[in-house]
Amino acid sequence: MASPDLAAHLSSLLPSSHPQLRDQVLPKLLACIHDIANTLRTSPSVTQIGTANAFGDNQLNVDVLAEGCIRKTIASCPSIVTASSEEDPIEKASTPSSSPGDEKYTLAFDPLDGSSIIAPNWSVGTIIGIWDSTSALHQPPSTHQIAAILGVLGPRTTAIVALRLPGTQGTCFEIGYSAAGTMQVVRPNIKLTDPTALKTRYFSPANMRAAADEPKYLHLITRFVKEKYTLRYSGGLVPDVVHALVKGHGVYISPVTAQSEAKLRRLYELAPIALVVECAGGVALDSATGDRVLERCVRDTDERGGLICGNGDEVEQVRRALIEG
Amino acid sequence: MASPDLAAHLSSLLPSSHPQLRDQVLPKLLACIHDIANTLRTSPSVTQIGTANAFGDNQLNVDVLAEGCIRKTIASCPSIVTASSEEDPIEKASTPSSSPGDEKYTLAFDPLDGSSIIAPNWSVGTIIGIWDSTSALHQPPSTHQIAAILGVLGPRTTAIVALRLPGTQGTCFEIGYSAAGTMQVVRPNIKLTDPTALKTRYFSPANMRAAADEPKYLHLITRFVKEKYTLRYSGGLVPDVVHALVKGHGVYISPVTAQSEAKLRRLYELAPIALVVECAGGVALDSATGDRVLERCVRDTDERGGLICGNGDEVEQVRRALIEG
Repeated sequence: MASPDLAAHLSSLLPSSHPQLRDQVLPKLLACIHDIANTLRTSPSVTQIGTANAFGDNQLNVDVLAEGCIRKTIASCPSIVTASSEEDPIEKASTPSSSPGDEKYTLAFDPLDGSSIIAPNWSVGTIIGIWDSTSALHQPPSTHQIAAILGVLGPRTTAIVALRLPGTQGTCFEIGYSAAGTMQVVRPNIKLTDPTALKTRYFSPANMRAAADEPKYLHLITRFVKEKYTLRYSGGLVPDVVHALVKGHGVYISPVTAQSEAKLRRLYELAPIALVVECAGGVALDSATGDRVLERCVRDTDERGGLICGNGDEVEQVRRALIEG
Repeated sequence: MASPDLAAHLSSLLPSSHPQLRDQVLPKLLACIHDIANTLRTSPSVTQIGTANAFGDNQLNVDVLAEGCIRKTIASCPSIVTASSEEDPIEKASTPSSSPGDEKYTLAFDPLDGSSIIAPNWSVGTIIGIWDSTSALHQPPSTHQIAAILGVLGPRTTAIVALRLPGTQGTCFEIGYSAAGTMQVVRPNIKLTDPTALKTRYFSPANMRAAADEPKYLHLITRFVKEKYTLRYSGGLVPDVVHALVKGHGVYISPVTAQSEAKLRRLYELAPIALVVECAGGVALDSATGDRVLERCVRDTDERGGLICGNGDEVEQVRRALIEG
């Protein structure tokens, strides 16, 4: 399924180790992003099927279809031995079971993130974390989550891939898709760097309602306005974070306050996003504690957290304002 | 190209008058939105071609391709006698010229609005105003701009159509496209209504940087935060306004302040957006004067203005805050 271009890039990153990750898991999951995009594209009338998923969200028919695309891909990769998703948040062994010589990976994924902005036809995303283990729970994310994919389902289909084997710096790249699904590496080396004084600076403040009860957050937003930052906030976690990755800088904030609890799922949202941001040279912190997101093991599939992520300088400014403030 | 569904809907709206508008101009322009979406979709690597358009924006290769799609459609509709666009802002007679019995329309269009968010793969739009005249300039927009199309180029392709013949209330509907381009009316009657106390309320504040120098705008934004409105601001005019249309309520604000001049082009952006919002039962005001956008003739293709639009109650609150404030 992969074009020589993607295959060549993956071979240069993984010349000898992890052959099943390189030749099957990553190319097949990336091909699956294109299938999900096609499924969404050919659903001209997006309807709510009237059921709620395990977290109580309204579930759209396209959520179920996207979940099906990824489950089908999992069934075709024997080295993916365990999987869970936001739609079905219980870790389960995959069938068919792996052979003794296989690598063993666990997938944790959110098949279609951004339900509230599907109806107005705004860009949404797919989030996948790949763990080098038979479970994603109670494992140190910084060493055991070795890859992540953010699929961007927009006017085009694109995907951001992060890969970091233990002991390496990690790498982050973007792929584009042709109409037929052929994959090309369009940005081989994504880097988040601190903007210079001349650059437009971007901020993406999630849950701005929380600022009504939290003066530190209100003060921070007012400061961004006064310093003439440009606002970009779609309300879709994937497009909002990918905006910074493609522009090369920016800061995304999902606060946790006394009146507003943590919203993002550690396993399906925070951990993969944090790996991508770190592999691009950025910083991803828990907005409640200021700790690195990837320092903390995930204990439960429904565990939540807050997030500050982006280029280092601006994340540090937000950390000081919200936590030391 | 039109499915019986779209054709039937247009026939019910225009049973006897304007046959060329009903049978050619609207169906062909709507089919063209699908062509533009395909063009954007199959440009995996979006590049800047290094030229600037007449307004000094950076022009992307996809802007040029989208302009070409619409110009080709114009050439196939003899009743479109004049056209100008943001890319080529001079009103020119179309070829082939019309026959004596033809209806006579002028098109004013922005082929691809939202250049700055194309690279991160966020939804963007196409804006088309259709004028029942041989020019769009120096004509009262409220009576002479009789139709408008907002194409939404996102994970799906959708379009909002507004139609208002002089003396009628006007109507606003949404169409969806199959993968092959077949068009279906998915929302036959879009209405903006004032939200009840229980509903989530949305605001979309453009150019928030202007609040740094304009206390009225900063105060308004702070009030929205304190009243726990939900922020949705992509920076793309079409997706931002369509968000309100699809949710049924919401307010979009593009301010004009002493330090920040008007940004939106009256001919290519303000007039078509205002027609769509009014046909959906909403209100579209000039944010500098508080006057109805469609009350004022467009004198020049580069003329700019500010905008407050959405459901009536919230537009009125913003008008009071920014103009009477």
